[in-house]
Amino acid sequence: AMAAPAPTKEAGPSIGWDSHKAVDSVPESLVRGVEGNESMRRRFEKACREAQIAICKAVEDCDGGAKFHSDAWVRADGGGGISMVLKDGKVWEKAGCNLSVVYGSMPQEALQAATERGVDRAKGLKPGERVPFFACGLSSVMHPRNPHCPTMHFNYRYFETEGGAWWFGGGMDITPSYLNTEDMTHFHGTLKRVCDKHDAAYYPKFKKWADEYFLIKHRGETRGLGGIFFDDQNDKSPDQHFAFSEELLQTVTEAYLPIIEKHKDDAYTEEEKKWQQIRRGRYTEFNLVYDRGTVFGLKTGGRIESILMSLPETARWEYDHRPVEGSPEAEIMEAFKSPREWV
Amino acid sequence: AMAAPAPTKEAGPSIGWDSHKAVDSVPESLVRGVEGNESMRRRFEKACREAQIAICKAVEDCDGGAKFHSDAWVRADGGGGISMVLKDGKVWEKAGCNLSVVYGSMPQEALQAATERGVDRAKGLKPGERVPFFACGLSSVMHPRNPHCPTMHFNYRYFETEGGAWWFGGGMDITPSYLNTEDMTHFHGTLKRVCDKHDAAYYPKFKKWADEYFLIKHRGETRGLGGIFFDDQNDKSPDQHFAFSEELLQTVTEAYLPIIEKHKDDAYTEEEKKWQQIRRGRYTEFNLVYDRGTVFGLKTGGRIESILMSLPETARWEYDHRPVEGSPEAEIMEAFKSPREWV
Repeated sequence: AMAAPAPTKEAGPSIGWDSHKAVDSVPESLVRGVEGNESMRRRFEKACREAQIAICKAVEDCDGGAKFHSDAWVRADGGGGISMVLKDGKVWEKAGCNLSVVYGSMPQEALQAATERGVDRAKGLKPGERVPFFACGLSSVMHPRNPHCPTMHFNYRYFETEGGAWWFGGGMDITPSYLNTEDMTHFHGTLKRVCDKHDAAYYPKFKKWADEYFLIKHRGETRGLGGIFFDDQNDKSPDQHFAFSEELLQTVTEAYLPIIEKHKDDAYTEEEKKWQQIRRGRYTEFNLVYDRGTVFGLKTGGRIESILMSLPETARWEYDHRPVEGSPEAEIMEAFKSPREWV
Repeated sequence: AMAAPAPTKEAGPSIGWDSHKAVDSVPESLVRGVEGNESMRRRFEKACREAQIAICKAVEDCDGGAKFHSDAWVRADGGGGISMVLKDGKVWEKAGCNLSVVYGSMPQEALQAATERGVDRAKGLKPGERVPFFACGLSSVMHPRNPHCPTMHFNYRYFETEGGAWWFGGGMDITPSYLNTEDMTHFHGTLKRVCDKHDAAYYPKFKKWADEYFLIKHRGETRGLGGIFFDDQNDKSPDQHFAFSEELLQTVTEAYLPIIEKHKDDAYTEEEKKWQQIRRGRYTEFNLVYDRGTVFGLKTGGRIESILMSLPETARWEYDHRPVEGSPEAEIMEAFKSPREWV
């Protein structure tokens, strides 16, 4: 059922706007049958799918109201995806967790948008020649209702190009509307513990990378209070990189859900809700203007509803809004303007 | 007071994030004193300023509630702006009309973002060399409260580069949430009448240009129901192009306000309001991902609050929203998918 022509360097855009076909039952694998069960493609897909099921289950239990709705689709040229989306929950306004498997070819510029060292990835290709690639990843954004509950995002992905280049990338970050130091110590501390098990250099490096990556440049402020971000990881064995990604996928709920359990019943005012909406406007600005995954998805003809699942249900823009000096809103703005160490 | 060093080709970014200084009184002109009152720079600024005052007055009268708040600022390296913003009106949730005068130098890539024929504008410059320019324009976006009242946008601008190249650009377009053919005939008909007075080729050419420009490419749908759009106009005398821009500026209220007067008291349901919010999500997507003025402003360090004044007060994203077949929402979607002729 997944048979499709292999993408070639000569092909035009291999992914069109209407190339996503909904399927009624979730396929066991979206990776092409020919890859073999031991391939990193299959192994990474399996780790993502298992994490998707476990995370969505834990989030449903925490929400106690809405359930995730699942959409599966295949693409005309191979690959496909499974979107899991929860709406109108008791705790979450909107939460999504998407698995995607892409066989495609992309313009070299899109490759640059997809990686930090894009130019190296296109080595050996003539200018204008398209780059055939495989990508598999799990992406998630969860926007809670209560302004004292932070928004969370993670994405872990594995890439291969036809030329045999491969790399791992990903990260997880948190976006509160109000500052709670204890929560940030828990979140960053959990990520640091996993990083340290794999490489003592990881946390400081990837924490800084997140602070730089999640910057809304035109405002000189970060989207949230960071986490970790990494790309182009291929300096160890594939097994070592895989083990790190797999453990990070398994740590998502531990890093995030205790913060939600703690604050999901916090009282809040209309003004606090409005501030959360303004911060969601900033979230939207970051995602549409700078986010590499979003830009990559829009440029390569990804499934729009899955890509833009990351946008909040509602957002707000007030002209020249400035928090009152000394207020909790001004307090967290300071942390957005100058990233801090939390652990 | 406006003295500033002339931008040079060697200079780094001449406009920084903090180079906007608020001023207490509105200066008579933001164009440098040395230009002379007869210069096109001064004449265009005067036409914009007069239109800004007249349009804001007419909108206030129509609103019957809120008033425009005015912010003036100057930039460290010359130029400045006057933002006029109305919030929480009876009729409009948010309406802005901004005059800006910019003396700057921009990377050649920003010039490409600013014009259709960007490459020609950079002729004679070495790769990487910055392009000193002057720009003056009036920009406006008005988002009404009632879902039966359309959002309106216009922008008219005049550019010069140091090398003596000059061009006029601009346009006006309308974004309803519901289709009313009579209103579209009035809006497009008014623009066509002005276009026809200046050149019979203008309306068909500029109407098509707007349909192409205001396309949300990743969705395959337009932002609204079009209008006119043009750029790089310099094939006639400066006086002829100026006369066309000036008349368009003077026609804004006639093209837009009768539609608002007609619908401002229309009854509407919560569902209709929600659909308007979803369309405002699309408006946000277009502005942050594709709009040339927004991208140009963000890249050249423009005043963020003035650039993003164009965003709606509130917007909404629902996962995989699809209008019910045969509904008024589905009816206008057809027009967004396949642009029509209205006159």
